[in-house]
Amino acid sequence: MSEIRHDPLLTRWVVIAENRAARPNEFVVSRPARQSDHCVFCPGNETDTPAALLVRRPSDWNGDEHQWRIRVVANLYPAVGGDAAGDVAAGDVAAGEVASEGAGLFRRTAGSGSHEVIIDTPRHVSSFAEMSEDAAVDLFDVYRERLAAIAKRPNVGSALVFKNVGAAAGASIEHAHSQILATPRPTAELDAEWRASREYARRRGGCVFCRMAAEEARDGGRVVAETERAIVFCPFASRFPYEMCIVAKHHESRFEHCGRGDLAEVARRTHAAVRALERVLDRPAYNYVIHSAPPTADDSSHYHWHVELYPRITTLAGFELGGGCYINPVSPERAAQRLRAAVA
Amino acid sequence: MSEIRHDPLLTRWVVIAENRAARPNEFVVSRPARQSDHCVFCPGNETDTPAALLVRRPSDWNGDEHQWRIRVVANLYPAVGGDAAGDVAAGDVAAGEVASEGAGLFRRTAGSGSHEVIIDTPRHVSSFAEMSEDAAVDLFDVYRERLAAIAKRPNVGSALVFKNVGAAAGASIEHAHSQILATPRPTAELDAEWRASREYARRRGGCVFCRMAAEEARDGGRVVAETERAIVFCPFASRFPYEMCIVAKHHESRFEHCGRGDLAEVARRTHAAVRALERVLDRPAYNYVIHSAPPTADDSSHYHWHVELYPRITTLAGFELGGGCYINPVSPERAAQRLRAAVA
Repeated sequence: MSEIRHDPLLTRWVVIAENRAARPNEFVVSRPARQSDHCVFCPGNETDTPAALLVRRPSDWNGDEHQWRIRVVANLYPAVGGDAAGDVAAGDVAAGEVASEGAGLFRRTAGSGSHEVIIDTPRHVSSFAEMSEDAAVDLFDVYRERLAAIAKRPNVGSALVFKNVGAAAGASIEHAHSQILATPRPTAELDAEWRASREYARRRGGCVFCRMAAEEARDGGRVVAETERAIVFCPFASRFPYEMCIVAKHHESRFEHCGRGDLAEVARRTHAAVRALERVLDRPAYNYVIHSAPPTADDSSHYHWHVELYPRITTLAGFELGGGCYINPVSPERAAQRLRAAVA
Repeated sequence: MSEIRHDPLLTRWVVIAENRAARPNEFVVSRPARQSDHCVFCPGNETDTPAALLVRRPSDWNGDEHQWRIRVVANLYPAVGGDAAGDVAAGDVAAGEVASEGAGLFRRTAGSGSHEVIIDTPRHVSSFAEMSEDAAVDLFDVYRERLAAIAKRPNVGSALVFKNVGAAAGASIEHAHSQILATPRPTAELDAEWRASREYARRRGGCVFCRMAAEEARDGGRVVAETERAIVFCPFASRFPYEMCIVAKHHESRFEHCGRGDLAEVARRTHAAVRALERVLDRPAYNYVIHSAPPTADDSSHYHWHVELYPRITTLAGFELGGGCYINPVSPERAAQRLRAAVA
């Protein structure tokens, strides 16, 4: 019989049903093809995107505008924001909260905030794993620099760093890129994690993420990799097959405040995690996100920033969308075992 | 600028960003092909599935075992249950709650419950819209009969009726079918709706769904169809483009208790809603679910059963999965306008 696992942090439960892995599928889903060879993110095509908010140049930069390591631009089709998404948009963000309107049941607010795109690399590759380890660390450092700038604006409920790789993970562009979406209210997942960790600190004392990392390390069955500074494990109540969580052992609430050593180590471990995933699963689509304490919260000492990595090999169906519950056909223990072997 | 809309019932908010609809997509996703012509759900192949839990025969049945209108069987690859998913599995469900174990952070429970498959029609069609209106009513009546049987078992937190049409909506079999998944705890969505409607009844009095239906009818801007008994509208804070909600105007908490007239009318309106959707969107993948009060709840008078219909034309990405927030590029008002025209 399958197992219902309760998330250690959230009220969420998931069904771990390994027998479902044998379920036949009538449909053959082919890898989607690209429509055109023109890439708006490749060097030389910088005018296809808005002016850069940040550019990192190579150390031996020769002054050529097309020569860069990482470029950050405003999203041309922003989910929020809409005016230039640069740091000048701060007034905009503040206006959002004030503009709430609507009588009775139906309340709406201006979609203020900002939506940035980070072009991870000048090379036309699609996966984070195709970048070098140094480039991965560089990218995480850019995330931090942008988050630090965004967090200073008023009324930033949360700024979610995320990455979509592959059409099945929601990517619309092949060239490796990341996004930062800053919204006036914290996203639901972050808000739920933040409240649950605050409740844990009140009742039990201490950080629930630190405890989780320690318990995972002690148990070992779900650990994919462990170093002095960080741990990678398949969460006990994983929603997705081969889902991973990457946590720095040093307690820090905000990603943008973390030290250089932890940042580099989490970037390297995330990079290795994606490489292991691609060895086990033949280059699946995936997302990763960085969860960091909401910038507007007064006291977030109970929270602990981390990376979550979601392989996208299953399709969410009616039970997931209409029930808000997940069925995972691969136990985190089995996933960790395979990923450990691939890391080694 | 986009708009942030707060769900009238849940704490959830969504971003309505119509500018995102113009976003180019490099990838061409083709409709997945079927691997084989053999169908495990077609008449003549009954032995490919477990023994029927319920069979509806045509009125002029000639005694041929292969002649049926609707067949209900246990899922061969159940997410929960695992033994025969018939009504005899009741003891199993009760055991689930008792078997909760795990020290500290990690709690697990046996995956008890049941997982049934309803083969909607003997005809090899894929969409609900390809069935006749009478067959649609018949199908909803079978949902009710099975729900009534399942709700009598002990410890059924919820029994979610859902339907996946198309590979992009999570279907693994083409032949039109539905599922009922009964779990020892209510699903997260149902639990959240149930608690929120209870809170509304306590604070304001009355049923929030009745009020919402009345306000939608008065406003008209999001209404797709309205009859004496039912209303179809695109929810104010729709998570998905062209999402619809189908509600009977008569207040009833449990689907399995609703009257024949309401059941038939909601079935017909859901059928017409899917037909309209297929006219507007070239036969998209979709899910629908029936939300009904949790069978184990003592007092559910504040809750109101309804159908939710989710077209699957967008792919959930890192922001949705890691943020728990949705970006919808089609406003419910625009969606309703197009669907109204298609219904007429």
